[in-house]
Amino acid sequence: MIDYKLLEALATVVECGGFERAGDSLGLSQSAISQRIRTLEIRLGQPVLVRSPALKATPAGQRLLNHVQQVQLLERDLARSLPTLDQPSARLRIALNADSLATWWADAIGEFCWEEGLLLDLVIEDQDIGLRRMREGDVAACLCSSPQAVAGARCVPIGSMTYLPLATPRYVARFFPDGLSEQALQEAPAIVFGPNDQLQHRFLAQCGFLGTFPHHLCPSSEGFVKLATAGMGYGMIPEIQVKTQLKAGTLTSIAPGKHLEVQLYWHFWRHGGGAMERLTRALVSGNGLVPS
Amino acid sequence: MIDYKLLEALATVVECGGFERAGDSLGLSQSAISQRIRTLEIRLGQPVLVRSPALKATPAGQRLLNHVQQVQLLERDLARSLPTLDQPSARLRIALNADSLATWWADAIGEFCWEEGLLLDLVIEDQDIGLRRMREGDVAACLCSSPQAVAGARCVPIGSMTYLPLATPRYVARFFPDGLSEQALQEAPAIVFGPNDQLQHRFLAQCGFLGTFPHHLCPSSEGFVKLATAGMGYGMIPEIQVKTQLKAGTLTSIAPGKHLEVQLYWHFWRHGGGAMERLTRALVSGNGLVPS
Repeated sequence: MIDYKLLEALATVVECGGFERAGDSLGLSQSAISQRIRTLEIRLGQPVLVRSPALKATPAGQRLLNHVQQVQLLERDLARSLPTLDQPSARLRIALNADSLATWWADAIGEFCWEEGLLLDLVIEDQDIGLRRMREGDVAACLCSSPQAVAGARCVPIGSMTYLPLATPRYVARFFPDGLSEQALQEAPAIVFGPNDQLQHRFLAQCGFLGTFPHHLCPSSEGFVKLATAGMGYGMIPEIQVKTQLKAGTLTSIAPGKHLEVQLYWHFWRHGGGAMERLTRALVSGNGLVPS
Repeated sequence: MIDYKLLEALATVVECGGFERAGDSLGLSQSAISQRIRTLEIRLGQPVLVRSPALKATPAGQRLLNHVQQVQLLERDLARSLPTLDQPSARLRIALNADSLATWWADAIGEFCWEEGLLLDLVIEDQDIGLRRMREGDVAACLCSSPQAVAGARCVPIGSMTYLPLATPRYVARFFPDGLSEQALQEAPAIVFGPNDQLQHRFLAQCGFLGTFPHHLCPSSEGFVKLATAGMGYGMIPEIQVKTQLKAGTLTSIAPGKHLEVQLYWHFWRHGGGAMERLTRALVSGNGLVPS
């Protein structure tokens, strides 16, 4: 069997961001930690950590971390049936889309984490990258808009988010006084989350406009709303994120009546144990999204 | 002089996320775009793009992109004195901290971008990484908490953000019924933005507690607030981000009277031209932060 002392040292170094702090956390000297990492690297025949520019796990190290995480989850199940065992800690690494994290995510799973004392390690990823990290064993679950299951994992639809094309009334009066047109869209700055964000393109295609358009890039869900509210551009925003602004009239649709529905799917490993199953139930029942 | 047609092809491929779309945008065939990129790579003696897992610029390609961006900024100044020139487009790549983008940033520079038609390419980075990207010529400016100027760049203090240690009243009643203590802090989950976020550590050190503590990782400013509001942990949150929650009492301090002030500094290249100077003026005068 794997020597879990070595894996625990690796997990702690990454979690604490350094050898000295990892030693403090495990009650070991810094050199004892270094020795464990070195032993692990010799056994594995490759590095598990890169030191520069910042301390982080190599791809091989990441797979080990994910394995530790899964083992800790299973230990959590074990501790429920053998309560005399120390309650183990576990942190679950989950990839999810920025808009879910900025809106409904915490409300759906907060109570579950409260009751189970589960810690989350959340990473924001585009769906393709999120699913790849899942295939590589780097995350235990992935929330994204792809229905395509990863081999060995389950995929559950959990509802959809409604996106509206929004800008300030002043912006609409300046750039779209006569509604959307090919020419107006060549002048009007949009807001795009990042190079892989195709929501604005999809919306414009739905309206019959193809091709490129000027845009800001803003890789922050809340920043996106702030840019739109400051009149800097139009963009597709989750309706649930801007209820206040819609009611107050500070944001308005650039194409009234039009919207995009984005279906969301929850991908998780089959061998995730009881905690993962209960988390999935919490997600499915408590998300408050439009049902699939 | 550099052949700017080649650099424009590179910038457009990265902006559009593909050769075909870049061709559409520039009115060229896909193979003409490929040819330009190839020529650029031959002249440079190294690749400017990586194709997999996602299309993106190599470090060398990034430096070229930043150069194009700076040239476009200077063209923008030129067009103001020679209005018969076509108004050129320019997108300014800026590294900034997530909390600024989630709160005051857009209000401070929105009007400026509105008037000048300037597009922004925002990237969220920890300060060390942001300043390194600046030194490498990958971003034109950086907003962060480090006062240490990069050689060749200016550094202007623009004010400070006040961070409070917040959680829900229910959370405080469960984990800190008798206030903060070494033991309570070993049980109470915190929320940390990422491995380089030391705000929680600094706050606890200020209160006399050193060492590690259990925590969620949540790399989203808005998600951070949502996790805290859902009762999942305590964390340092900008006061301006949660005025509503503080007033309603849904978030409360775990250590009343204590806070952290984070000074922010604006780093920008001296040769950024008039647009950069005007942007800096807008930032300094319109940020609404606590004056430095």
